[in-house]
Amino acid sequence: MNADEFSEGLAELSRLLGSAGFTDSVEDRGRYGGDASTALACPPLAVLRPADTQQVMDVMKVCHRHQISIVPQGGRTGISGGAVPRPSDVVLSLERMNGVISIDQDDACLTVWAGTPLETVQNAARSVGLSYAVDIGSRGSATIGGTVATNAGGIRVLRYGTTRNQVLGFEAVLSDGTLLSNLRPLLKDNAGFDLKQLFIGSEGCLGILTRVVLRLSPEPYRRHTAMLAVPDYAAALACLASARRQFDVDLVAFEAMWPAYWSFAAKRIEKPSPLGEGYGVYLLIETTSESQIPLEEWCVRCHEEGITTDGVLAQSLADARSMWDLREAIGEVGREYGSFLSFDVGIATSRLGEFVETCDACLGGLIPAKTLYLGHIADGNLHVIVPVETNDEAAATEIETRVYELISKMQGTVSAEHGIGLLKRPWLHKTRSLAEIEIMRRIKSVLDPANILNPGKVIQP
Amino acid sequence: MNADEFSEGLAELSRLLGSAGFTDSVEDRGRYGGDASTALACPPLAVLRPADTQQVMDVMKVCHRHQISIVPQGGRTGISGGAVPRPSDVVLSLERMNGVISIDQDDACLTVWAGTPLETVQNAARSVGLSYAVDIGSRGSATIGGTVATNAGGIRVLRYGTTRNQVLGFEAVLSDGTLLSNLRPLLKDNAGFDLKQLFIGSEGCLGILTRVVLRLSPEPYRRHTAMLAVPDYAAALACLASARRQFDVDLVAFEAMWPAYWSFAAKRIEKPSPLGEGYGVYLLIETTSESQIPLEEWCVRCHEEGITTDGVLAQSLADARSMWDLREAIGEVGREYGSFLSFDVGIATSRLGEFVETCDACLGGLIPAKTLYLGHIADGNLHVIVPVETNDEAAATEIETRVYELISKMQGTVSAEHGIGLLKRPWLHKTRSLAEIEIMRRIKSVLDPANILNPGKVIQP
Repeated sequence: MNADEFSEGLAELSRLLGSAGFTDSVEDRGRYGGDASTALACPPLAVLRPADTQQVMDVMKVCHRHQISIVPQGGRTGISGGAVPRPSDVVLSLERMNGVISIDQDDACLTVWAGTPLETVQNAARSVGLSYAVDIGSRGSATIGGTVATNAGGIRVLRYGTTRNQVLGFEAVLSDGTLLSNLRPLLKDNAGFDLKQLFIGSEGCLGILTRVVLRLSPEPYRRHTAMLAVPDYAAALACLASARRQFDVDLVAFEAMWPAYWSFAAKRIEKPSPLGEGYGVYLLIETTSESQIPLEEWCVRCHEEGITTDGVLAQSLADARSMWDLREAIGEVGREYGSFLSFDVGIATSRLGEFVETCDACLGGLIPAKTLYLGHIADGNLHVIVPVETNDEAAATEIETRVYELISKMQGTVSAEHGIGLLKRPWLHKTRSLAEIEIMRRIKSVLDPANILNPGKVIQP
Repeated sequence: MNADEFSEGLAELSRLLGSAGFTDSVEDRGRYGGDASTALACPPLAVLRPADTQQVMDVMKVCHRHQISIVPQGGRTGISGGAVPRPSDVVLSLERMNGVISIDQDDACLTVWAGTPLETVQNAARSVGLSYAVDIGSRGSATIGGTVATNAGGIRVLRYGTTRNQVLGFEAVLSDGTLLSNLRPLLKDNAGFDLKQLFIGSEGCLGILTRVVLRLSPEPYRRHTAMLAVPDYAAALACLASARRQFDVDLVAFEAMWPAYWSFAAKRIEKPSPLGEGYGVYLLIETTSESQIPLEEWCVRCHEEGITTDGVLAQSLADARSMWDLREAIGEVGREYGSFLSFDVGIATSRLGEFVETCDACLGGLIPAKTLYLGHIADGNLHVIVPVETNDEAAATEIETRVYELISKMQGTVSAEHGIGLLKRPWLHKTRSLAEIEIMRRIKSVLDPANILNPGKVIQP
């Protein structure tokens, strides 16, 4: 790239966006240099903060002409490095395109700017007696655009599906400034190839989302929570099958924790642990219904049938909170282990138990402490925390290789919900065939022929 | 195309598939010449009936080399002409790739050949105490491949979503014989662009589906049915809002019939009509729960609040059946009107009432009898039956123009669930921008550069 041509492009962008929308100060470049992942932060050339769709279109036309590569950013809460720029990239932050544009109760949907925080959307939905179904820990910072671009999952997937299931309409700007706009609030729309599906989960590589129409759901009834202990994973599966029969879509969460994680978590919560040590798998179950009686009766039946060994029902919101605290103690893992690797894998629900056993066997001897396993087992999604010696790069690579080899062998996925971004790109081929990756590459080249949209993320150029 | 090269290609296909898989007899060519639409049937050059994925790959390699164009066929139940060949096309029927390959209760899914009838899948699911959520009238003939290729909707979309929401894994053969295979039974899999989403609803234009993994759901509880009369569409909306609050995902169906349709249907059912004439809109509501009490109480409340004018609860399966008979009398419309046009439009739920009024006004004077309106209003999907004089082509074109202009003006879609195929291709631009259609075209050209997969369907070459 010619340096003159490059500075000319930046000058054009600066004129276009003014001081409110363009900055290349050292502080700002530093501020937008990283996300919540372990990918090395790096200041971009400049930061663009357009105010509306027209400005995004104008920006992309300039960038296309000058071959300036763009990294779109929402709340920078991703943990796969999808929003981390390279030194030659310019960041395009959606943060000024923020706010709910309209809510419609009859159509049970809202239209929103992509830079709006998830929590703002949840609150807006609640203000009209409805709810937005996606919920993740970083709700305060993560933006709607980011959650759509990564097809965010979270804790309610079992009942409501991922973000993909909530997107009714979309508006995106392509790499050459072309606008694709379809903001219809339609649940059913079989008119041609469904382009929005391509942009959902594309991690900023195919276009820049500017507005979306999201489906809203009725506010759920009261929730009821129980914690159960089972002797082994086979019993966990029996318990899940029984819960599905009993609660159908009223089963909201079915989480499992393995003993090493349980011991770790039980030490970290304030209240005494609701169940003792020594069981095979611990289950956290949440249902929704008017009364608690169906959950209570079902828990008793599971015990009588010998599926569960022990169990406790939350008798108050505080009880439920401390059960969830056990599950969310995963956030504290940094205090226990100076250094660790975190995996977000997906495997058929029926094979998660086998995965845990085999993974333990194949990491044995390589790691300084026990591996922690927990996850949304009804979704087939397991989070795996593997302790490593600090600064032992070779061991880290060996662990990643073994875990992803196992995933590949068991027909799983290297990313159930966090996306590929930069950090998992080397492992994509463990879960996608060369033919699949080649088609992804061709689709990228059709929508972004100059490769200026988040280049190097998801697939190698 | 050189005639010699062409016959050489057919000879090669005949050798490849043998007599079980290749036929060009006049009878067979006639049999595979049409679908359930009004598109003119046309015998193809030959009919291919491969037995497995490998044969589909081999077929496509031959067709690619000889530039032979292929029309994939399932049960030929589509009503947009998507499976109708041109004289120079060869039909590829999936009918021999038929059967459930495996069912897994723990993973709540099954793997199936694309040529399997929908009803076979529904029965297989039921045999293990689960259910397959998609249901349409043509369940006995429609194949799974066809329902995936058209993203079939049906009567349970409100609760379970369309076919798109049921597809966990897929296998497809591209136009050059490349295999894309991802038969993982994973609910969450964010590893790169989600290619299966492209093939779902692509009407055979991007690849040939050979196998899919489908999500199964718990068997629903007993269903409860009610029929309510409201004074106008505003009251229908109030009733829907109230039902959503009350039943959440337990609301399975919320159908509306307008007076002209009601009068037509009431004459056609055997039992006396459950409600009298003269109301503004008739609603058919179905919920699922253990007992009928919640629906009963809610109906009483709606009446007390003045939302509904009259109403009746089904007291038996026979009652429920005759309520559904009213809804399904749409199949009898051919006996009333010699000639009619059928529209399958989508508009925001909140605007359906306005659409009906405006549509009536804009067709006034042009048609020999009243237009019939009915539909899945909670899905924003309306079926519109417009009577026309037999053989009056000019009037038919004028009616289509007016209806689709109105749809365009009201930000609706020209196809909510039946797809574009051949018959709605001239109207696609009424609901998709030129930029969107251009991107569809580019995606088609990336996956099928020689344009040999269902050419001329959905988009113009």
